[in-house]
Amino acid sequence: MPYINIKVTRQGVTADQKAELIRGVTDLLVRVLDKSPATTFVVIDEVALENWGIGGLPVDKYRRDAAG
Amino acid sequence: MPYINIKVTRQGVTADQKAELIRGVTDLLVRVLDKSPATTFVVIDEVALENWGIGGLPVDKYRRDAAG
Amino acid sequence: MPYINIKVTRQGVTADQKAELIRGVTDLLVRVLDKSPATTFVVIDEVALENWGIGGLPVDKYRRDAAG
Amino acid sequence: MPYINIKVTRQGVTADQKAELIRGVTDLLVRVLDKSPATTFVVIDEVALENWGIGGLPVDKYRRDAAG
Amino acid sequence: MPYINIKVTRQGVTADQKAELIRGVTDLLVRVLDKSPATTFVVIDEVALENWGIGGLPVDKYRRDAAG
Amino acid sequence: MPYINIKVTRQGVTADQKAELIRGVTDLLVRVLDKSPATTFVVIDEVALENWGIGGLPVDKYRRDAAG
Repeated sequence: MPYINIKVTRQGVTADQKAELIRGVTDLLVRVLDKSPATTFVVIDEVALENWGIGGLPVDKYRRDAAG
Repeated sequence: MPYINIKVTRQGVTADQKAELIRGVTDLLVRVLDKSPATTFVVIDEVALENWGIGGLPVDKYRRDAAG
Repeated sequence: MPYINIKVTRQGVTADQKAELIRGVTDLLVRVLDKSPATTFVVIDEVALENWGIGGLPVDKYRRDAAG
Repeated sequence: MPYINIKVTRQGVTADQKAELIRGVTDLLVRVLDKSPATTFVVIDEVALENWGIGGLPVDKYRRDAAG
Repeated sequence: MPYINIKVTRQGVTADQKAELIRGVTDLLVRVLDKSPATTFVVIDEVALENWGIGGLPVDKYRRDAAG
Repeated sequence: MPYINIKVTRQGVTADQKAELIRGVTDLLVRVLDKSPATTFVVIDEVALENWGIGGLPVDKYRRDAAG
């Protein structure tokens, strides 16, 4: 009975893409560990860009600098 | 000093229901493990239906199929 | 289909106490939000004392100071 | 820069299976959301059976009852 | 490659304050554990007051009682 | 009443280093957001190398390849 939490930046992820993530990661747990889909939970968190940091910077500033 | 995180689907949970969850789970930790309420944290996350998966499907589709 | 994560310090919590926590929090979700036990997950994490901080100190030192 | 946390019960998951989970979920994020593998983190938590609850019971007891 | 999650109550935290948290905690991991900023992730979650409990009460009520 | 979770790879982090992380991140929350240390929790998780993935690989293999 796996529980999978996927955190991504909030950037217009569509409902179809979320459904693909849910199906894909569930299939993976079934295939690799023989888990039952019926007791596999997936929770997707979309995180605002200013709330996600990398390299000591909020991700939007980090990307601007990298592109700079 | 327990920390409890409760994740539920976002479906109109009221402030009163949240207060009941907070009180109930705090009481449980006090009763079973003799923890202090003053250092017991509870965080409730409400997750959009399209962000929660079960059975390889987003939960709203999963429920429609189950009801189908 | 709630997911509940309970974090407590690792201090000899017994299997019976864990079972009580699992039953208690599941019952709470059933009672307050009418959730199904069959799709209610509970995960208990036991955290070493030196890995848990409060008041800017590891919890074992914090307690010694408080007992001071 | 996704972060994925996979929680499974601790039941002899091998290093090869963990590597497969890491590769599989990273590929999924690349394919569905065009994320970069270099900034995709995966953390696998293995949870003791007595620390995981479903149906109001620790999972080992839940399975015995279901098999019963 | 650390991952740090900071949860605070949602009370008008500004983008500048978030940037300070991200920079500060990244610097801390670099200084104490010699981690690389480029693979240090920080995720900030802002939690609604009614979703955060302490002392068995939602935090806004807890504060009113304490002030009372 | 912040809650901070720090995940690092399990590589001989000492109790002193953990105490430094706890003090440092608590001070940060006090300084930036004027939070009270007494209600600031820090939980450190040490993750086995084979349970942490980056670049689609377990971190030990990722580092060997990078060094290669």
